[in-house]
Amino acid sequence: MGVAGGRGGDGVDHSGAPRALLPPSLCLGSAPAPQQPGSPALPRALRQLPGAVTSTRSPQDPLSARRCPPAPTKPQQAMEGDLTLQLRIFDLNCWAIRYLSKRRQERVQLIGDMLRRERFDLVLLQEVWSEQDYSDLKARLGSCYPFSHYFRSGVIGSGLCVFSRFPILDTLLYQYSLNGYPYMLQHGDWFCGKSVGLVVIKISGILFNVYVTHLHAEYCREKDAYLPHRLVQAWELAQFIRHTSKAADVVLLGGDLNMHPEDVGIRLLRGWTGLRDAFAEATRFEGCEDGCTLIPNNCFTVKTELLPFPLGIRIDYILYKAISSFTVKCEELKTTTGTAPGMDIPFSDHEAVMATLHIRRQGQAAGATLGTAEPMLADVVTEARTEVGVGLRAAQRQRYSTGRMAVLALLLLLLQAAAALGALAGLATGQPFPKLSFSLLAFLAIGVLLLATGLHLFHTIEVKMLQGTEEQMRMALRALQERPSDG
Amino acid sequence: MGVAGGRGGDGVDHSGAPRALLPPSLCLGSAPAPQQPGSPALPRALRQLPGAVTSTRSPQDPLSARRCPPAPTKPQQAMEGDLTLQLRIFDLNCWAIRYLSKRRQERVQLIGDMLRRERFDLVLLQEVWSEQDYSDLKARLGSCYPFSHYFRSGVIGSGLCVFSRFPILDTLLYQYSLNGYPYMLQHGDWFCGKSVGLVVIKISGILFNVYVTHLHAEYCREKDAYLPHRLVQAWELAQFIRHTSKAADVVLLGGDLNMHPEDVGIRLLRGWTGLRDAFAEATRFEGCEDGCTLIPNNCFTVKTELLPFPLGIRIDYILYKAISSFTVKCEELKTTTGTAPGMDIPFSDHEAVMATLHIRRQGQAAGATLGTAEPMLADVVTEARTEVGVGLRAAQRQRYSTGRMAVLALLLLLLQAAAALGALAGLATGQPFPKLSFSLLAFLAIGVLLLATGLHLFHTIEVKMLQGTEEQMRMALRALQERPSDG
Repeated sequence: MGVAGGRGGDGVDHSGAPRALLPPSLCLGSAPAPQQPGSPALPRALRQLPGAVTSTRSPQDPLSARRCPPAPTKPQQAMEGDLTLQLRIFDLNCWAIRYLSKRRQERVQLIGDMLRRERFDLVLLQEVWSEQDYSDLKARLGSCYPFSHYFRSGVIGSGLCVFSRFPILDTLLYQYSLNGYPYMLQHGDWFCGKSVGLVVIKISGILFNVYVTHLHAEYCREKDAYLPHRLVQAWELAQFIRHTSKAADVVLLGGDLNMHPEDVGIRLLRGWTGLRDAFAEATRFEGCEDGCTLIPNNCFTVKTELLPFPLGIRIDYILYKAISSFTVKCEELKTTTGTAPGMDIPFSDHEAVMATLHIRRQGQAAGATLGTAEPMLADVVTEARTEVGVGLRAAQRQRYSTGRMAVLALLLLLLQAAAALGALAGLATGQPFPKLSFSLLAFLAIGVLLLATGLHLFHTIEVKMLQGTEEQMRMALRALQERPSDG
Repeated sequence: MGVAGGRGGDGVDHSGAPRALLPPSLCLGSAPAPQQPGSPALPRALRQLPGAVTSTRSPQDPLSARRCPPAPTKPQQAMEGDLTLQLRIFDLNCWAIRYLSKRRQERVQLIGDMLRRERFDLVLLQEVWSEQDYSDLKARLGSCYPFSHYFRSGVIGSGLCVFSRFPILDTLLYQYSLNGYPYMLQHGDWFCGKSVGLVVIKISGILFNVYVTHLHAEYCREKDAYLPHRLVQAWELAQFIRHTSKAADVVLLGGDLNMHPEDVGIRLLRGWTGLRDAFAEATRFEGCEDGCTLIPNNCFTVKTELLPFPLGIRIDYILYKAISSFTVKCEELKTTTGTAPGMDIPFSDHEAVMATLHIRRQGQAAGATLGTAEPMLADVVTEARTEVGVGLRAAQRQRYSTGRMAVLALLLLLLQAAAALGALAGLATGQPFPKLSFSLLAFLAIGVLLLATGLHLFHTIEVKMLQGTEEQMRMALRALQERPSDG
């Protein structure tokens, strides 16, 4: 379908040539800029910085992969039949909130410079809230990433965008049905129109469904009021991926899921879609310990929030699976480790996640089935359903109390109307009437009535969506128990 | 995935048997109730009623198809390899709005009785706004349609539900991003959470993606303020179908599209998805002239609205296409023609649409490509994009004017604050202060500020979604012009 992206003055040939057959980068150091042989071509952000907590799981030199000759000089042509692709993916929550995020423009510029230098195949960004920032990035990256898409939704936007070296054939946005509360202004998630964006990309005949998303934030782990909403989002994300990816060869998901790796939402998402966690599967890893992407070493993170987690937390993910006769292997996973190279600031308050995937046409893909054994998956769905049920009861209570408040305000107004009528009669007898306090009270009652009615409607929607998700999960459990042919 | 539907006490075997292989009804008179040979087994609502405008396009006796022997006695077993299925689909906008729709409960009961009698394979209903009505129908229809799903969304609901003789394997709901205005209380579409619902059904190994939807109503054809919103919905519907139906063998769409057959939205939907109109393709047709589903003969329709259309209008559709190596043919299409059989009232203010489809495994399906020739499709997308552009400019103007009003209200409040400070100083000198009018003005300013801010936020979302759709259409046009390999 649509072919998106910067087409003006980006120096890339946009003629009728079959651009879907452009070879992807075939080695990590694929930047065409002149390099000294053997010099590191990968993100300088990956160099270990003083004080940064890093770990390397592979016995190999983590830099060895960088020492392959620059791709443009010796591109391994991918061929049909015996196809092996290497794909480099970059994922980052950019924390680019206008007027609120510190040193935003400077950081967006830094991100743009790094992306241009490193020439990934696919770049998945979150929290690019300002369309101006996206336009700036697009103009800056046009020559390396001629194709891009910005997903619009909500008052502020979805914050999601994708830059690609390969033509974007089609896009679709799915906005989550629940996303926090409009009156929680200090959190503000509700205004963002949190969504999952899909871009369809074809590389050397392989169809990629690439998803980028950002789920509701967690503000208090001990008493997480948003857990049911985040679980609804995780469920909708899993369902959206399952329904839209049936013709894809490879599925990729990148984003800030705002869930720890062991959280029920992540287990639900992985179990229900069969997606694999690049961090868990990677042959080589380099970056923050445990793959953390919110770390105390990052000067923009709120240190008190990370006190229970001295190493930090991992909430940004790259997940993948092969659907048809392909296999996907994560050869290498990296994270940035705080400050950007040569600068005194990091790219964002999150660390970037970078994966190098090997995609090979080879027999039946293991990812075609559900990722978790079915009895375990049933447990996960049951756990998630219980949490959604807790949220449902809370929403029902709030719907009731806001409805009661609206009724009380209406009664007050009716009483006032009766009093006013009485006063009109009273005025005839010359009695004084407390106009000011009467008016103030009437306005207060009207205000409360409107507010309570609005909240009541909001919580009615919330109840409906939680009920719908709970019912879907119940059906899923029944299907798992009955082991249908359709996985 | 999920297997939905009434499982309690419905007399149907729900054990682990492969229910997906239950044969569909293989002749029109498939109701197992005892029948006299040759007696009409199809909806008695189809009998021509006095005064009803009907037409029959086929030279054959329209009742001949009803005279096949009852299916349960001689079921033609569908077989893999040389597969031919006959599927009977029922679609109706039920007009079941609590407290507002006339004789609602009586009509819902009539609809339930007729559905139980006629035993369609698939029933797609819209405007079942009350979950109680759905539950009643489910209880009444459990023995004939053991599988069902109700789609929840918005304050009131989506109104969409599906009853099926075959197991529902999976469901997904997509809520349209635009759906009218919250302040147009007299129209009320905004509160309904208009959506498209998908149910996945497998019959004799054939995978059906069945979509049911209801688009924004048209209240004034000459000056249709909702046209851009309805076009965004038609575009999102087409995109949702394209992205979710890639693994399906057959795609079916039923619903109240609130568009005349020649409208740009219908042409866009058909052209962009390749769906065919059952009315246009049917070998035999019986029902209201031109297939109209809102007719002056229906006692619930608003006659003045139909004055420019003496025959009525056709806004309820069954559309279909085959995706993989299947072909679909509409053998027969029928509509009801006003009053329900033996009653003084119709089922609804809309006429029901009933299609009998033949599905055959046979070579490459014609529906696998886009339905309209590409140059024509480009014209349709251009026309739709122009209308969306008109809506975008209107939304931008409203965003501006509501923003300006909010600023003015804020200025008024600031002025009042200054006046209050001045008055405080004035009180020291014993000057009188008009407390009542001052308070009233302040409350008015606060009210206007809140209202204008809310509307400004709403129109900001509207602008974003219209921009997003316009951009997607622009990409689609470019892709059509470049003729990519991916249709």
